[in-house]
Amino acid sequence: MDDSKGLALAFEEAKISYDEGGVPIGAALIAADGKVLGRGRNMRVQSSNPILHGETSCLQNAGRLPSSAYKGSTMYTTLSPCDMCTGACILYGIARVVIGENKTFLGGEAYLRQRGVEVVVLDSAECRGLMERFIAEKPEVWNEDIGV
Amino acid sequence: MDDSKGLALAFEEAKISYDEGGVPIGAALIAADGKVLGRGRNMRVQSSNPILHGETSCLQNAGRLPSSAYKGSTMYTTLSPCDMCTGACILYGIARVVIGENKTFLGGEAYLRQRGVEVVVLDSAECRGLMERFIAEKPEVWNEDIGV
Ligand SMILES: [Ca+2]
Ligand SMILES: [Ca+2]
Ligand SMILES: [Zn+2]
Ligand SMILES: [Zn+2]
Repeated sequence: MDDSKGLALAFEEAKISYDEGGVPIGAALIAADGKVLGRGRNMRVQSSNPILHGETSCLQNAGRLPSSAYKGSTMYTTLSPCDMCTGACILYGIARVVIGENKTFLGGEAYLRQRGVEVVVLDSAECRGLMERFIAEKPEVWNEDIGV
Repeated sequence: MDDSKGLALAFEEAKISYDEGGVPIGAALIAADGKVLGRGRNMRVQSSNPILHGETSCLQNAGRLPSSAYKGSTMYTTLSPCDMCTGACILYGIARVVIGENKTFLGGEAYLRQRGVEVVVLDSAECRGLMERFIAEKPEVWNEDIGV
């Protein structure tokens, strides 16, 4: 899949979360053959759940899979992944993490690379704009989401 | 809370998961003041969910909390935490991770220490025995759980 198309799926999820009153971060997991394995969005507010970030929600929605299914896969995420989501991608051997933006938050990109995961930052103005709007509107929810 | 008491709570969860036919790993999160914030167990099999490890399940059950609630807290877990659970503990600023055993699986202990988290390994024969039994009985489920 073209990286801009993968990120567009993740951004759709982020917008849905924003419209639901939640943290506007979305993700999509695409297999090596281009199949969409799962999509997800941050559900902290909607499900009152602290472990459902965009990426983990996406992995949950993809369901139980053998390790072979993650081989060569790409995790698209609208925002630089936090330490939990970084670890989740490493656990399942995800090959690439493609990130919308890392200006509003810089997560585990260096550690992903250190552990052999390819990291691409697309520097999306759309992703950044949505996060900036959300952080300005609900700073306390954002701080809670990143453990600040 | 005494570390052996905290681990006993985690081990209770691990046994429940084993009896449910699941991966027998449990966790308990204890606040600085000794209050039990949450307990949880691996739910891969029971909920067909790849992100519900013992520690993440415990964090989910503890619910939404301000970052101050995690301050000085201890995560008790029957097994050395995988990369995802390691990252989850770092994200929320958990102060200590107390581990039942790390002989059947060695997770992110070095990285936790590198990120400033205190790590204690209790070397519990009970925890190790339960994991060895499970791994011998269901090696394919275990491999799926650790991305192998
Ligand atoms: Ca993220
Ligand atoms: Ca574990
Ligand atoms: Zn995250
Ligand atoms: Zn784990």
